[in-house]
Amino acid sequence: MASMSTAFPKTTPFLSHPLTKSDSLIATTVSFPSSARSRSLRRATLRVRSALIEPDGGKLVELVVPETRRREKKHEAADLPRVKLTAIDLQWMHVLSEGWASPLRGFMREAEFLQTLHFNSLRLDDGSVVNMSVPIVLAIDDEQKALIGESKRVALVDSDDNPIAILSDIEIYKHPKEERIARTWGTTAPGLPFAEEAITNAGNWLIGGDLEVLEPVKYNDGLDRFRLSPFELRKELEKRGADAVFAFQLRNPVHNGHALLMTDTRRRLLEMGYKNPILLLHPLGGFTKADDVPLSWRMKQHEKVLEDGVLDPETTVVSIFPSPMLYAGPTEVQWHAKARINAGANFYIVGRDPAGMGHPVEKRDLYDADHGKKVLSMAPGLERLNILPFRVAAYDKTQGKMAFFDPSRAQDFLFISGTKSVLFLIKTLIWFGSIDARTGKEQRKPTRWIYVPRRLESAC
Amino acid sequence: MASMSTAFPKTTPFLSHPLTKSDSLIATTVSFPSSARSRSLRRATLRVRSALIEPDGGKLVELVVPETRRREKKHEAADLPRVKLTAIDLQWMHVLSEGWASPLRGFMREAEFLQTLHFNSLRLDDGSVVNMSVPIVLAIDDEQKALIGESKRVALVDSDDNPIAILSDIEIYKHPKEERIARTWGTTAPGLPFAEEAITNAGNWLIGGDLEVLEPVKYNDGLDRFRLSPFELRKELEKRGADAVFAFQLRNPVHNGHALLMTDTRRRLLEMGYKNPILLLHPLGGFTKADDVPLSWRMKQHEKVLEDGVLDPETTVVSIFPSPMLYAGPTEVQWHAKARINAGANFYIVGRDPAGMGHPVEKRDLYDADHGKKVLSMAPGLERLNILPFRVAAYDKTQGKMAFFDPSRAQDFLFISGTKSVLFLIKTLIWFGSIDARTGKEQRKPTRWIYVPRRLESAC
Repeated sequence: MASMSTAFPKTTPFLSHPLTKSDSLIATTVSFPSSARSRSLRRATLRVRSALIEPDGGKLVELVVPETRRREKKHEAADLPRVKLTAIDLQWMHVLSEGWASPLRGFMREAEFLQTLHFNSLRLDDGSVVNMSVPIVLAIDDEQKALIGESKRVALVDSDDNPIAILSDIEIYKHPKEERIARTWGTTAPGLPFAEEAITNAGNWLIGGDLEVLEPVKYNDGLDRFRLSPFELRKELEKRGADAVFAFQLRNPVHNGHALLMTDTRRRLLEMGYKNPILLLHPLGGFTKADDVPLSWRMKQHEKVLEDGVLDPETTVVSIFPSPMLYAGPTEVQWHAKARINAGANFYIVGRDPAGMGHPVEKRDLYDADHGKKVLSMAPGLERLNILPFRVAAYDKTQGKMAFFDPSRAQDFLFISGTKSVLFLIKTLIWFGSIDARTGKEQRKPTRWIYVPRRLESAC
Repeated sequence: MASMSTAFPKTTPFLSHPLTKSDSLIATTVSFPSSARSRSLRRATLRVRSALIEPDGGKLVELVVPETRRREKKHEAADLPRVKLTAIDLQWMHVLSEGWASPLRGFMREAEFLQTLHFNSLRLDDGSVVNMSVPIVLAIDDEQKALIGESKRVALVDSDDNPIAILSDIEIYKHPKEERIARTWGTTAPGLPFAEEAITNAGNWLIGGDLEVLEPVKYNDGLDRFRLSPFELRKELEKRGADAVFAFQLRNPVHNGHALLMTDTRRRLLEMGYKNPILLLHPLGGFTKADDVPLSWRMKQHEKVLEDGVLDPETTVVSIFPSPMLYAGPTEVQWHAKARINAGANFYIVGRDPAGMGHPVEKRDLYDADHGKKVLSMAPGLERLNILPFRVAAYDKTQGKMAFFDPSRAQDFLFISGTKSVLFLIKTLIWFGSIDARTGKEQRKPTRWIYVPRRLESAC
């Protein structure tokens, strides 16, 4: 719990990752007190790296077929055995196609699947290790397997049977559903949203291979303009001259506690000598459980937060992270962090119980609220990422505004919740009421929030 | 399955570990055809290493208090809060005390426990990674926790309340039983032998800390002379001038298929240029499930195998591995291999479905028979170990003896089973019958074995 008392411990709670360890920052000329930082600068100077943190594996993987070859590839796809994708399959295909999972080049083959399940990481040919904590796999059933037969390639088709991708050099292997669920979620209790949606009734086989996507993935839901790929995000961050990028994953509306935290993070990064820290406000856009707030509502809310100056548009990039949500706690938070490295982030803000949820059967949270942060700080392949543990914010009755929680005067604070489902929906509706009314400063007052004292923070 | 057709593929099935990659072998002067071997020799010469493979973390951990300090430590222990150990706790304490889990210095604290569950490995202070796939933890209940209070040290006591160790700088943390089981076994189905014995009814807390064991662990069961510590094994292997050590983990009697495999392994190592490959025949001595053959029987059988020349006593070391058995398949086989590195082995023989068992509820094996070998070959921290996949041996009816299975004439072979419980016990009794009669060559004929065609090999 000590690490919560400050948002910027010199080191992460368990291992020796100095906060400023990233060796791929722009070399600024400000003097900097930390010796770790000095080492980092020397290294940056010597290595002549690009401004932003390198993608995993050194190169951002992009799997969309270049325009000049699309006609030919579509022609090829037409003759291949077909695998129909579900909505979640399509989200993973989107994730893969833009390189969020770099250096992964397609749905996992068995060697990658096993490494993910057992080690939460992949060893590359050169012996280096990248983080990869959640299986990105494609299930097929017996019938589809029989149809594929001896073919080494398949076409992936959408719900209307249109080919949208080719999977080559395929490998078909058993789908060990129970083991996949147990090792990913640490439970096999019925009621895990992702497992019920995408695993339990999925096929008994997994098909891996090299992916070529025929067109950039679009959803035509009015939100595609927010769906910047890692490549596009990197371009945007470079255009803005970011010398530190801090990512904030969320799947709920931004509340004032978040806003305070993000503003404070920027202030602290400036104090540390960074000239232009940029916030990547990065709501998850894929599958979420039924009682989470829909993406379209959330995006409206995020836009308002910027419009109304709660967050500074100059130093904030709002974009959609296309991954589905697994609610797999310490396992998933690694994926959330790793994907943001690929988008250029070298700082990652992590809260209590990240990607957590209530146990589907027992009356308790599924994960220890501190495990996500701890696991993230020790995860293989994430050593380059600076982990910023959340400071708990609450409504300070003495100041009449949100402030960082001070345990020495606990009685002065009111805590707000992020996830209690029914209450949360009510809360969101009230929140939206305040936005629609354009009441300006009103938004920053937490009096409209529902008071749920047992859960401090878990909105991301 | 391809890798089964030869016991010595040039590389392990999935990643680039050349068979001769170990860089801590004795530099022999024989010419050697493999370039990997030549590199290895150059490195060995340059680095001036000790003869045997280095223990994990560079130094073998030994946690038994030196004789000169025992009186003082016993005195200290007498005044500390007490934690009573179960039989399995004591086996883990034994394991820790002799450095099988080097560089672990005691029961795991939470950071080690979480890394084990999520990554099957531990990152050391210098950034290097060692394998550690199974939690070595000590559970206490609410009452014990209350008794410990604010003390930073506890005494560990045996069933008669005699202090046998001190645990210092302790950390008490929650015991997430369901998650521990799910992530270790890939299932939470009731009926996992180790979980039922040591987890489900264990306390809700885990206590980690630095271990000091007051006396070398002895069981006084007539088998202590077989319980060589890693230090003693290394001494023995060095005395014999081993330039390659190949370990064979088993929890069942040796059968003729094993014997053929071990003899053949030595022959091939000689062909590769090693002068003195030594077999570490290493039966597991801790907790096993009720229907496995008891250790005392197995040890008698192993002695006979040597006495009767089925294996050569000159080039074989028989010793007991004190770990309890988890039956955790791909997760556990890493532990079995890692512990043998600490005992000096640089080659590890792995079979089909290592450390596997039937699913406790469903009518299938718990693990895919090939996953153990695959996971082992990719496991972090085991890159230095040469993995030798099992060749399947069976009774060749045309030759009238055990031979490596040739799939092109499958009809000529009879397969034997290692684990089918009742059948296995019968088989063992028959086997013992043949030994007691000292019928010499009779032993090598598998006509006395029970024919169970569905299970090819899983006796280790």
